[in-house]
Formats: sequence, C-alpha cells, structure tokens
Amino acid sequence: MAGKDSELEKGLHAIVGSFYKYAKDKGGAQALDQAAFQKLLNNELSHQLTDVQSTEAGKDLLKKLDTDKNQLISFEEYWELVALICYAIDGGDWGN
Amino acid sequence: MAGKDSELEKGLHAIVGSFYKYAKDKGGAQALDQAAFQKLLNNELSHQLTDVQSTEAGKDLLKKLDTDKNQLISFEEYWELVALICYAIDGGDWGN
Repeated sequence: MAGKDSELEKGLHAIVGSFYKYAKDKGGAQALDQAAFQKLLNNELSHQLTDVQSTEAGKDLLKKLDTDKNQLISFEEYWELVALICYAIDGGDWGN
Repeated sequence: MAGKDSELEKGLHAIVGSFYKYAKDKGGAQALDQAAFQKLLNNELSHQLTDVQSTEAGKDLLKKLDTDKNQLISFEEYWELVALICYAIDGGDWGN
C-alpha cells in the first residue's frame, strides 16, 4: 500500500488524465473537438502515432473513431484509440 | 517526433509491458496463471486495487475476468481489467 504508484498505475491515470487535459464540456459530457483531438495527437502521441501528426490525417482518424458521427471524440471513442494502440504495441496478435 | 515519450505513451507501454512481465507461455499464448496474476495485483496494482491484495480476493477477481474459464488470464481478459480500472478512475460516468 505504501510507496509510489507503479508504472502501470501511473499509466492508467495518464490514459484517463490525457483525455481530460484536452476535453471540453460539450453539451453536458466532456469530449474532444477536432482542434482538441489534434492537440492530443500532436502533444501526447507524437512518438506512438507518427502518421497522424498532420491536421488532415488527424481529421481522418477522428472520423474513424467518431462512431456516433457527432464530430466529437467521447471518452468511449477515445478508449477505442487506446485499445488500438495497445493492440499495436502488443504486436497485433491479441485475440488470436 | 523528437524528445521523450509523453506520460500517455509511457502509460500505454506500461499497460502492455506489465502483462508480459508476469505472463508465461501457456499452450502457445502468453497468459497469467493464478500465481502470476496475484503477483501482478500485489506488485503493480497495490494502490489502485486495495481490495484484491489477498490471495482469496485475487482468486475471486480472476474468476470474474476469466471469461473462457481456463483458469488463466489472457491479454484480452487483462484488457477488461484495464478498462474497469480506467472506468473507475473516470468516476464511473463513462458511457452515460
């Protein structure tokens, strides 16, 4: 119980915290609009997602993740991105 | 591109890496047996999951996550735990 958070614990908090660092109140729920999503990609995922650093590529990714087509990324939609990245880190063999 | 990984990037790697730190080859796929799962809970999640630090509580959690009932935690089943913790950190209002 004592001592510092593990890398895993810090990681779990970083995942949730990174969303709220950029999210804004959008009709009652926190979400990322296109500009906020691009900032998150550029500031927090520049090493991991090197191919979506341009605004054009970021817009395409937003479109892919935006399952309810409201032009916003909800925490649930952001979670899909987190899952995709972890899947890629895992070597793509997750679930096989 | 240059510079250090962000907290988010480190976090994503910590999530995947923490599984493989304890997983062993179980019939071709990496998985956590009960002892390995308990070690992960005790060593990496002692601050976040204070109520599953005993072997008994750890066994109950394993049973809950073990959807294919093979007494092992696969990466997919571990991912459910990751999602549950992030949901809890998020305050439980994810998806509402």
